Amino acid sequence: GFAKVDHHRALRKGFPEVVFCQGKTTGQVVEIVRRLCGNNRTVLATRAGREVYEAVRAVFPDAVYSELARTIVVYRGERPQPKGNVLVMSAGTADLPVAEEAAVTAEVMGNHVRRCYDVGVAGIHRLLDKLDLIRWAHVIIVVAGMEGALASVVAGLAEQPVIAVPTSIGYGASFHGLAALLTMLNSCASGIGVVNIDNGFGAAALATAITRLMARPE
Amino acid sequence: GFAKVDHHRALRKGFPEVVFCQGKTTGQVVEIVRRLCGNNRTVLATRAGREVYEAVRAVFPDAVYSELARTIVVYRGERPQPKGNVLVMSAGTADLPVAEEAAVTAEVMGNHVRRCYDVGVAGIHRLLDKLDLIRWAHVIIVVAGMEGALASVVAGLAEQPVIAVPTSIGYGASFHGLAALLTMLNSCASGIGVVNIDNGFGAAALATAITRLMARPE
Amino acid sequence: GFAKVDHHRALRKGFPEVVFCQGKTTGQVVEIVRRLCGNNRTVLATRAGREVYEAVRAVFPDAVYSELARTIVVYRGERPQPKGNVLVMSAGTADLPVAEEAAVTAEVMGNHVRRCYDVGVAGIHRLLDKLDLIRWAHVIIVVAGMEGALASVVAGLAEQPVIAVPTSIGYGASFHGLAALLTMLNSCASGIGVVNIDNGFGAAALATAITRLMARPE
Amino acid sequence: GFAKVDHHRALRKGFPEVVFCQGKTTGQVVEIVRRLCGNNRTVLATRAGREVYEAVRAVFPDAVYSELARTIVVYRGERPQPKGNVLVMSAGTADLPVAEEAAVTAEVMGNHVRRCYDVGVAGIHRLLDKLDLIRWAHVIIVVAGMEGALASVVAGLAEQPVIAVPTSIGYGASFHGLAALLTMLNSCASGIGVVNIDNGFGAAALATAITRLMARPE
Amino acid sequence: GFAKVDHHRALRKGFPEVVFCQGKTTGQVVEIVRRLCGNNRTVLATRAGREVYEAVRAVFPDAVYSELARTIVVYRGERPQPKGNVLVMSAGTADLPVAEEAAVTAEVMGNHVRRCYDVGVAGIHRLLDKLDLIRWAHVIIVVAGMEGALASVVAGLAEQPVIAVPTSIGYGASFHGLAALLTMLNSCASGIGVVNIDNGFGAAALATAITRLMARPE
Amino acid sequence: GFAKVDHHRALRKGFPEVVFCQGKTTGQVVEIVRRLCGNNRTVLATRAGREVYEAVRAVFPDAVYSELARTIVVYRGERPQPKGNVLVMSAGTADLPVAEEAAVTAEVMGNHVRRCYDVGVAGIHRLLDKLDLIRWAHVIIVVAGMEGALASVVAGLAEQPVIAVPTSIGYGASFHGLAALLTMLNSCASGIGVVNIDNGFGAAALATAITRLMARPE
Amino acid sequence: GFAKVDHHRALRKGFPEVVFCQGKTTGQVVEIVRRLCGNNRTVLATRAGREVYEAVRAVFPDAVYSELARTIVVYRGERPQPKGNVLVMSAGTADLPVAEEAAVTAEVMGNHVRRCYDVGVAGIHRLLDKLDLIRWAHVIIVVAGMEGALASVVAGLAEQPVIAVPTSIGYGASFHGLAALLTMLNSCASGIGVVNIDNGFGAAALATAITRLMARPE
Amino acid sequence: GFAKVDHHRALRKGFPEVVFCQGKTTGQVVEIVRRLCGNNRTVLATRAGREVYEAVRAVFPDAVYSELARTIVVYRGERPQPKGNVLVMSAGTADLPVAEEAAVTAEVMGNHVRRCYDVGVAGIHRLLDKLDLIRWAHVIIVVAGMEGALASVVAGLAEQPVIAVPTSIGYGASFHGLAALLTMLNSCASGIGVVNIDNGFGAAALATAITRLMARPE
Ligand SMILES: Nc1ncnc2c1ncn2[C@@H]1O[C@H](COP(=O)(O)O)[C@@H](O)[C@H]1O
Ligand SMILES: Nc1ncnc2c1ncn2[C@@H]1O[C@H](COP(=O)(O)O)[C@@H](O)[C@H]1O
Ligand SMILES: Nc1ncnc2c1ncn2[C@@H]1O[C@H](COP(=O)(O)O)[C@@H](O)[C@H]1O
Ligand SMILES: Nc1ncnc2c1ncn2[C@@H]1O[C@H](COP(=O)(O)O)[C@@H](O)[C@H]1O
Ligand SMILES: [Mg+2]
Ligand SMILES: [Mg+2]
Ligand SMILES: [Mg+2]
Ligand SMILES: [Mg+2]
Ligand SMILES: [Mg+2]
Ligand SMILES: [Mg+2]
Ligand SMILES: [Mg+2]
Ligand SMILES: [Mg+2]
Repeated sequence: GFAKVDHHRALRKGFPEVVFCQGKTTGQVVEIVRRLCGNNRTVLATRAGREVYEAVRAVFPDAVYSELARTIVVYRGERPQPKGNVLVMSAGTADLPVAEEAAVTAEVMGNHVRRCYDVGVAGIHRLLDKLDLIRWAHVIIVVAGMEGALASVVAGLAEQPVIAVPTSIGYGASFHGLAALLTMLNSCASGIGVVNIDNGFGAAALATAITRLMARPE
Repeated sequence: GFAKVDHHRALRKGFPEVVFCQGKTTGQVVEIVRRLCGNNRTVLATRAGREVYEAVRAVFPDAVYSELARTIVVYRGERPQPKGNVLVMSAGTADLPVAEEAAVTAEVMGNHVRRCYDVGVAGIHRLLDKLDLIRWAHVIIVVAGMEGALASVVAGLAEQPVIAVPTSIGYGASFHGLAALLTMLNSCASGIGVVNIDNGFGAAALATAITRLMARPE
Repeated sequence: GFAKVDHHRALRKGFPEVVFCQGKTTGQVVEIVRRLCGNNRTVLATRAGREVYEAVRAVFPDAVYSELARTIVVYRGERPQPKGNVLVMSAGTADLPVAEEAAVTAEVMGNHVRRCYDVGVAGIHRLLDKLDLIRWAHVIIVVAGMEGALASVVAGLAEQPVIAVPTSIGYGASFHGLAALLTMLNSCASGIGVVNIDNGFGAAALATAITRLMARPE
Repeated sequence: GFAKVDHHRALRKGFPEVVFCQGKTTGQVVEIVRRLCGNNRTVLATRAGREVYEAVRAVFPDAVYSELARTIVVYRGERPQPKGNVLVMSAGTADLPVAEEAAVTAEVMGNHVRRCYDVGVAGIHRLLDKLDLIRWAHVIIVVAGMEGALASVVAGLAEQPVIAVPTSIGYGASFHGLAALLTMLNSCASGIGVVNIDNGFGAAALATAITRLMARPE
Repeated sequence: GFAKVDHHRALRKGFPEVVFCQGKTTGQVVEIVRRLCGNNRTVLATRAGREVYEAVRAVFPDAVYSELARTIVVYRGERPQPKGNVLVMSAGTADLPVAEEAAVTAEVMGNHVRRCYDVGVAGIHRLLDKLDLIRWAHVIIVVAGMEGALASVVAGLAEQPVIAVPTSIGYGASFHGLAALLTMLNSCASGIGVVNIDNGFGAAALATAITRLMARPE
Repeated sequence: GFAKVDHHRALRKGFPEVVFCQGKTTGQVVEIVRRLCGNNRTVLATRAGREVYEAVRAVFPDAVYSELARTIVVYRGERPQPKGNVLVMSAGTADLPVAEEAAVTAEVMGNHVRRCYDVGVAGIHRLLDKLDLIRWAHVIIVVAGMEGALASVVAGLAEQPVIAVPTSIGYGASFHGLAALLTMLNSCASGIGVVNIDNGFGAAALATAITRLMARPE
Repeated sequence: GFAKVDHHRALRKGFPEVVFCQGKTTGQVVEIVRRLCGNNRTVLATRAGREVYEAVRAVFPDAVYSELARTIVVYRGERPQPKGNVLVMSAGTADLPVAEEAAVTAEVMGNHVRRCYDVGVAGIHRLLDKLDLIRWAHVIIVVAGMEGALASVVAGLAEQPVIAVPTSIGYGASFHGLAALLTMLNSCASGIGVVNIDNGFGAAALATAITRLMARPE
Repeated sequence: GFAKVDHHRALRKGFPEVVFCQGKTTGQVVEIVRRLCGNNRTVLATRAGREVYEAVRAVFPDAVYSELARTIVVYRGERPQPKGNVLVMSAGTADLPVAEEAAVTAEVMGNHVRRCYDVGVAGIHRLLDKLDLIRWAHVIIVVAGMEGALASVVAGLAEQPVIAVPTSIGYGASFHGLAALLTMLNSCASGIGVVNIDNGFGAAALATAITRLMARPE
C-alpha cells in the first residue's frame, strides 16, 4: 500500500511537529498545539507573537519562548537523535530574528548549534577571525539581507554545504529581499543551496536533512 | 598564516578542476585544460560545444565528451573517494541537458549516480513507481522547468535533502526559468535548497558537499 | 436592436446579482443591495467584512453571512436551475478564505459543491485518497498559494476542466501570489484555465459558465 | 492498484497523442510520431517547422501540415466523439499562428470549429457584426496580443466560457505578452480562464475538456 | 534674458496655481495656499484630505471642497478663458476619485466638462449609448483600472485625442495599476496619450494644453 | 444603424491608410498596399525594410522610401487638410529612426513638421538655443531613450502639449526602454502624454488628433 | 598581521561612528550611543524618530536633533579635518528628508555644505540661476524622486563628480523610487555615481571619501 | 551669455572627445573621428568592433586598438594633466572587456592605472594578497558580474571612493546584470557609487572627475 511512502518515519523519531502561526488566530494555534502534544510529540511553533505564547503557556506552563526568534517549543516524548554541527552566521543585527528562527529550529531538531553573528563582508577581518568555527561545522547556515554577499565569501572559505537565507532587511533597491536572493542564487562560489526570503525554519530543516544522513546506517 | 584556509584540501582529493567554457574562446579552454592536467588533476569542462571538444581531444585523445550534458572530462590522478548516492530526476525531456550536466558532474566528483527522467507531476503515477529509487538516494537533485512543481512533490515523498534546479525551459510566462525558480523557493515541502536557473553543475557540487560529509571522520 | 445581446438572459435565470464590496462604504453596499433585492433577484456580496454584514442584516434579517468567505447572500426570486458538480480543492489552511469565496459563489449560482481542503502536494497521498471526489466533479477549482503546484497534479489526475486560483498566501519570493500565478500558467498538465490572484468569485463564475452548458438545449 | 487513476481513459477515446516539437530534433520528432502511430492513435505535432513536416511526411505520406499553425496531424484509429462548438477569435493578423494552433487542435480533438479573425477592439463594430457566431459557440477562445482587451469585450457579450490566450505579439511595453496576460487576468468581465502566452494548444485542450462534459453520461 | 522662457504667460491667464498636498503637513498646505492667494491667483489643491480642507476653510471660508476628488479650490482673480469640451469617462465606480480629480481640474482650468462614468467594456452597450457625448468632446479623458481596456475601445470610436489614466484599482495581478498602464500603452487604437497611474490632475493639465490650442491666435 | 460610428470620416479626409509591416511577409505588404491604393487613399507603411520597399516600388514606382524612418509612402487622392505645426525633438543620434518615423508620419498626415535633434539634457544649452522652435510648435514630440529626461525639460519650457516617446536605445539598466518610459510617466512637468516605447507612429497620430482640432468647425 | 587593513585610520580621525536606527529599539540605540561616546568619538544616528532622540538626550543633553533629517549628533573628541565643499541639490520639497540626511552627514564628516533645494528640471531657469553654487562645489549630491532627471542636467553643467540619490517620492509608476533609480543609472551625462534609493547617508559618505582625497598627502 | 556654462573647459584640457560606436555605422564613426581629430583633440572610440578599427586605421594609421576593451584611441594635441591613481579590479575573466574599457578610458584621461583581475570573493585570500595595490589607489573601480559581491568587500577594506560596475556576465537569475546591480546598490559598506551595467567608460569618467579634484587649485 501507499503507507510505504512513510518508511523513513523511524528516522524522523524525535523530529518535532511544526505549527506555522502566521495567518492563524491565537485560538487556532492553541488548539493545534494541544492536539499535537497529545501525540506525545515535541511541538515547535514559528512566527509566534508574544500573545500567542501567553495563550500557549496558559495550557503548557513548560512552553519555552524566544522573543527574538518568535518561536515556542513544548518538549514532549523522546529527544531527537544527536545529529551534527550546525553553524548559523549572520551579516547584520537586523537579520537576527531570521537567524534565531534557524538556530532554534536546528536545536529542536537535534543538532549542536553555534551562532556567529554580525560578520558582514564590509569588515572581512571579523569573518576571518572565525575560521575555527567554520571548521567545526558540518553545515553552515548563512543569513543575510541587503546585498547578501556573505554566503559567497563563506562558501569560498568552507568545503561544507552552505544554506543561504536571504532576508527582507534593507530598503530601497533591496526590494524586500530580492537583491539578497539574487546575489545568493548567482554566487560564484559552489556548494550553496538557497531557501526562501526570511525562511530560517526552512534552512534548519534542510540542514537537518543533511546532518541526519551522517547518522544513517549505510 | 592564511594558508590554513585550505586545510580541507585533503578531503578534496580527487575533486576535479572545473572549467566553465561559456564566454571563453576554444583556444582559451584548451590552454586552461592543458595547464590543469599538467597538475595531474582530473578536469571537467562544462558548457562545452562540440568544436571545443574536438580541440581538446586533439591534445588529450582520452577526453570524454557528452553531447547532451555539453561536458568534457579528462581523467587524471587518483580517483575521488567514494561518497554517496545521488539521484537525478527531471520533469521533461527538454530538461535533459541540465539534468545530465548535474549527473556527469556528480559522477566525476565521486558519487554513485542514477537517473530518473520524464517524471513530471502531470502524470504522478510515473513518479510513484519510483519510490525505490528515492529510498536508494542520499541526495536527490530535481531538475524542472515550466512550473517546476516536481521538487515539492519529491521533497514531500523523501526525507533526504533535495536540491532543486529550475531550468529555462518553457515559453511565455515561464520568463526564462523565473516561474520554476519561484515555485521551488516557495515550496510548502521542507528540505529543499535551490540553485540558479540551469545550474546543473552547482547542484552536483552541493550534492557532493553533502555526500562528502558522510565519509568525513567525525 | 442591440437588446439581442442579452438573448441568453433566460439561461441566466436565478443567476445572482453580485456586489464587490472592496472599496465601497458600508452605506453604499446597503444601498445597492436594497436596490437589487427590489428586483427580486438573489444578491451575493463578496469581500464583505462583518460590519458590512451587520448593516445589511439590519435591513434584510434573512441575509446569510460567511465569516470565512466574507460573503453575504440574500436569497430572492426563483432558485437557479440545477447545474453541475463543482469540487473546490485547496492546498493549505491559509487559502481557505479564497476557497470559500469560490465555494459559496458556486453554490449560490446553482451548483452542487464539495470541498476538499488541505491536500497540498507536499503530502501527495492525501490527494490520492480523494480520487472518488475528483471523479464526481464536472469542474474542479484548485486554490493554492505559495508554489501553487496543486493545480498541475490535479489536472494530471483529472480529465475535467480545472480552474486554477493562485492566492496571495506566502511570503518572501511568493511576491503576493505571483509565484503561484506563474506556476499555474506554466503547468505541464493541460486542461487548466487560470483566474486572477485571490479571485475565488471569478473561478466560480467560470465554473458556472461551464456547468450551465450541460443543461443547455443543444 | 494505481491504474484506477486512468479510469477516464474511455472518455478520451479519439483524443490524439500530442508531440511538442519545440526543443526536439527532427529525428526525435519522427521517431516519436512513428511510435505513437504504431499505437493506432491520431498524432498531433505542434510547433513544427516545415523541415520537420517534410521528414514526417517521408514516413507518413498522409500527414497534414498547416504552415500557419505549425501543426502536423497524422490521423489514425477511430475519430473522436463529436463534442461541441468552439469559436476562435483573434484581434490582429499577427495573432493568427496562435489562433490557428488553437483551431487545428480543437478540430483534431473532435470539435466543430469556426474562426473569426481581425476583430480587435479598436474597431468595435467589426465585433458587433459577429453576434450570431458568438451565439453559436459553446466555448470561445479569444487570442490577442498587444493590449489583449478583446477577451473582456467578448466575455461581456457572451454567457459561455471564454478562454483567453495572450500572445507575444507587440513591441516595447508589451513585454513579450506580459501586457496582454495581465489585461486578461484582470478582466472586469467574468467567465474567463487564461492560459499561458502563445499557448493555443492549451486553450483548445481546455475547450475540449469543457465540450466533452456536454457529451458525458451524467 | 531668460525671462523670455515665460513668454506664454499671457496665455496662461486664469490658469490656477496648484498645490500637491500628498506628503505635506496641513500647516504647510495652509501656508502655501495663503501665499498663492495673496497673488490673486486661483488655487487648486489636490490629494487633500478633509482635515486639510477644514484648515484651509478656516482661513478662506469660500474654499470649495470635493470629498470624492479630494480637491480644494479657492477662486481668485479673473476666470480662465473659455477653452474646450472635455469628456471624462470611467470604467468602474472605484475609479471615481481619479476621474473626479481630472474633472475638477479640467473645470478649474476653464474647460466645459461632462462626466460619463461606469461604462466598462464588459457591458459594451452602455458605452455605445454614449456616442453623442463622444461627439461633443474635443478631448476625452479615459480613467480605468483593472484591465484598462476602455481606452482602446473609446479611441477606436473617436477621432479626438484620448488621454488615458490607468488607476491603481484592482487586486492580485493588477499590480497596483501596472496592468492597466501596460494595456493603455499597448493599445492597438491610435490617438492615445498615457499619464501616470492615478494621475487625474495630469490628464486634465494635458487636456487643457490641448484645448488651449483651439483658442490660440495662429 | 451602427454606421454612425464612422460619422467623423469626413474629418479624416486625407488621413492615410497605414500598414504596419513588422510580422508581415513582403508579399502580404505588397498585396495590402495594392488593395489600399485602389481605394485612391494615400498609403503609409511603417517598419518597412529596404527589400519590402523594393517590392512595393516594382508595383508603384512613385513610392517614397525613408531608409532612416523605415517608412514607405504612396501618395494618392487629395492631400490632407493643412493642420498644425509639429516639432519633433530627440535626445541622441540613436533615437533618430523613431524620431523620423514620427516626423514622416506627421507630414503624411498633413502637418508642418520641423526637426530638432541631438538636444539631450546633458548639454542643456543646446536645448536653450532652440526656444524659437519651441514657440513655433503647436505640438511637440519628444523622442528619447536611455534616461528619457528630455521630455520633462521641454515640457517645463513649453505650454503646448508634449508627446513623449521613450525609445529602446541604451543598454544595461535601460531595460529596452523601460527606464525612459518610467521617467516620462513620472515627469514632474505637466502637459505630457506618453506613448509606447519606439512608437513614433503613435506619437504622430496623437499629434494629428490634436492639430486636427484646431481646424475643426466648433 | 591583518591590522594593516586599518592603516588609513589616521586619516579617518574625526570621522564619526554611525548608528542606523531603523529596526532597532530605542533602548538598543541609547545603549549603542552610550558605548560609542565612551570611546570619545562623535556619534551620528540616522533614521531616528523623535522619541529616540528624547531618550538619547536624557543621557546626552548636548545631543543635536534634526527633525527633517531624522538625525541625532553627539559631538565628542577632536573635530574632523576640514575637507571639501559639498553641494546638496534637490528637485522637490518631498525629497528634503533625504537631502537633509545627506547634508547633515556631510557636515558631521567635516565638509563645508551648502543646500540648493527645489530646483527640479521642469523649471530649468531655477537651476541655471545657481551656476555659481555649482562652481563652488567639489562634489555635488543630487537628490531627486519621481523621474530623477535632475542628476543628468546637473552633471551636464558640472565637471565635478555628481552623486545621485534617487528617492522613493512619487506614486504610481515611480514604483517606490525605481523610476528615479533607473533614470540616474542611464544618464547620458558622465561623471555620475548612484547610491541606493533614499540613501542620503551613503551619498555623503561617498562625497567624504572623495573630498578626503584632496587633503591626503600624495 | 550662456557660454559661462563652459567655464571649466580649461580644466578639461587634454580630456578626450568620445565616440560611442554602438548603433553607428562604420562610415559614421570614421566621419566623426575625422572631424574630431581635426580639432586637434585626442579621440577615444568605445564599443568598437575590429572592422570599425580597420576603417579608422585606414585614415589614422597611428590609431591604437584594444581587442579586449573594444576601444580605439587616436592621440592628438597635448596630453592630459597627470591626475591620480586608478585601480581597476575585476571578479572573473568574463568581466575583462568591461574592466578593460574602464582601464583604457582612465589611461586616456590621464590617470595612472593598475589592473588587479580575477579576485572574486569566493577566494578571498586572492584579494587579501592585494592590500598594497588597494593602498596605492586614489580611486578603485570594481567590475563584477554574477552576484557582484566584490564591491562590498573592497569598500570594506578601503577608505577611498569605490566605483562599482555591475556586468551582464552570468546566466539564469543574474537577469543580464540586474543581480549584480542590486547587490552593489545595497552594499552594507559605504563609499560606493554605482554606474550602469557594463558601463566601464562611465566608471572611468567618474574616476577622472574625482582625481581631477586633487590637481585643482583650491
Ligand atoms: N517560518 C516558516 N516558513 C516556512 N514554512 C514554515 C515555517 N515554519 C513552519 N513552516 C512549515 O509549515 C508547516 C506547518 O504549516 P501549518 O500546518 O500551516 O501550521 C510545517 O510543516 C513547515 O513545513
Ligand atoms: N503548443 C504547446 N504549448 C504547450 N504545451 C504543449 C503544446 N503542444 C503540446 N503541448 C503539451 O506537450 C505535451 C507533449 O510534450 P512532449 O512529450 O514533450 O512532446 C502534450 O501532452 C501537451 O500537454
Ligand atoms: N510603428 C507602429 N507602431 C504601432 N502601431 C502602428 C505602427 N505603424 C502603424 N501602426 C498601426 O498599425 C495599424 C495597421 O496595422 P495592420 O492592419 O496590422 O497593418 C495602423 O492603423 C496603425 O494604427
Ligand atoms: N561605453 C559607454 N557607455 C555609455 N556611454 C558611453 C560609452 N562610451 C561613450 N559614452 C558616452 O557617449 C558619448 C558620445 O556619444 P555619441 O555622441 O553618441 O558618440 C560620450 O560623451 C560619452 O558620454
Ligand atoms: Mg565551498
Ligand atoms: Mg522532505
Ligand atoms: Mg487533465
Ligand atoms: Mg460573460
Ligand atoms: Mg481614435
Ligand atoms: Mg508644460
Ligand atoms: Mg559632468
Ligand atoms: Mg570604504
